[in-house]
Amino acid sequence: MTTSMTASGPLPYKTIGRLSQYRRLLGLRLAMGQRNVYSHELAAFAGVTAAQVRRDLMIVGAKGSPTKGYDVHALIECLGGVLDDPAGQRAALVGIGNLGRALLTYFHGRRPKLSIVAAFDVDAAKTDRVICGCRCYTMDKLAEVVVAEKITVGILTVPASEAQHVAAELEAAGVSGLLNFAPQPLRVGPHTYAEDLDMTMTLERVAYFARRNR
Amino acid sequence: MTTSMTASGPLPYKTIGRLSQYRRLLGLRLAMGQRNVYSHELAAFAGVTAAQVRRDLMIVGAKGSPTKGYDVHALIECLGGVLDDPAGQRAALVGIGNLGRALLTYFHGRRPKLSIVAAFDVDAAKTDRVICGCRCYTMDKLAEVVVAEKITVGILTVPASEAQHVAAELEAAGVSGLLNFAPQPLRVGPHTYAEDLDMTMTLERVAYFARRNR
Repeated sequence: MTTSMTASGPLPYKTIGRLSQYRRLLGLRLAMGQRNVYSHELAAFAGVTAAQVRRDLMIVGAKGSPTKGYDVHALIECLGGVLDDPAGQRAALVGIGNLGRALLTYFHGRRPKLSIVAAFDVDAAKTDRVICGCRCYTMDKLAEVVVAEKITVGILTVPASEAQHVAAELEAAGVSGLLNFAPQPLRVGPHTYAEDLDMTMTLERVAYFARRNR
Repeated sequence: MTTSMTASGPLPYKTIGRLSQYRRLLGLRLAMGQRNVYSHELAAFAGVTAAQVRRDLMIVGAKGSPTKGYDVHALIECLGGVLDDPAGQRAALVGIGNLGRALLTYFHGRRPKLSIVAAFDVDAAKTDRVICGCRCYTMDKLAEVVVAEKITVGILTVPASEAQHVAAELEAAGVSGLLNFAPQPLRVGPHTYAEDLDMTMTLERVAYFARRNR
C-alpha cells in the first residue's frame, strides 16, 4: 500500500469528503475488532456505489482483494497518509459563543493529527481560561498566537458582521484554510481555502423539501 | 410580484440555498433602512454572478428595474412565499448534548415561520425542562409529540450509532425533512428529504486544502 500517487496534486473536493467518511467507518470497525472490510460496506456507509469506493481507494494507492476486501488497519494508515499532515495541523476557533463552545467540545480529541489549540473572543470575560484543553485569548492576541502556535486552520463562529474581517486577520497571520459557520459567505485570497457551513440556509432548505415531499 | 411560477414544482437544491442567502442579506438591508437593492449587491453577498441572481429572482417571479433594482420589502415577501410555509413549520431536535443545546440557542427566534418546538433525549436528566422556549422530552414521547405538535422537520444531534434508528422513528411519526449532524449518512424513504451536515468531514477537508494552498 502506497500513497505516492497522491503527491502529484490535490485530490478533488468530493473525493476528500468520501475518504474522510471511509476513515470514520474504518475506525468504528477497528474498534469492533474487525480486520477486513469490503468496498460494498464502505459504499453503504457513505451512500455511494462500491465501484466509486474502489476507484477512490485505487487513487490513494490502497490495494484490496476480491475475496478478503481491504485490510482495515492498513487502509486507515493509507487514508491518514492523504488526509493528515504527518506533523499534525493546528486550528484556532474565533467566537466563543454557544456554538463555538459546542464545537470546542465536539472536536476535542476527535483527530490526533488535527487539534484546536486556541480560541479567541472580543469579550475578555470569555477568555483567559481553558475549555476542553483549549486556551482562550482576547482578539488582540490573534496574530501573535496564530504565528507562535503555527496555526493553519481557522474556524469562524462569529456574527455575520464580523466574519469577513476576522477571516482577513487569520489569513494575514498565516492561516490557509477556513471553516466558516457565520451566516456570511467569505471572500478570501487565492492561497486560502474557505468553506461555508451555513446552518440556517441548510435548515431552510430541509424545511422547503420537507414540504415538497409531504 | 408574484410567486405563481413556483407552484409548478420544487426548485433545485442550489437555487433554494441561494434564495435563503438573498433573504438573509435583504433582512440586514431592511434593518438598515435600505429600500432598494441591486442584483450585483446580492451577487457579491452570495458569491455568484449578478446574472445568476437575476435568473433566480425571475424564476420566483420577482420583478426589478435596471435603475432602481429590487424593492427590498417586496423581495423579502416574494422569497418568503417560496421558502416559508404560510402556516409555519415546526421542527424537533433529537440529542440534547453540547451541540444540540447550542443549536437550540442558535436557531431560537431566527425564522418566524420555522421554529424548533420540541427536543428529545434518552437521558431523563436532560428533559422535562425548557431550553430557549423549547420543551424537552424523553425519547419515549417522540411519536406522540411529533404528531400532536404537527412537526415535519427533524434535526439530529445524536451519536452516529443512534442516527439511523432515530431518523426512522421520526419518519414513521410523520417527519418528512431531516437535518443530520450525526457523523453517519442517513438512509431514508422516497418521501423524506435528508441532508447530512458532517462537521468533522468538512473540517478534515478544510485542513487538507489548507495544506495544499500553503
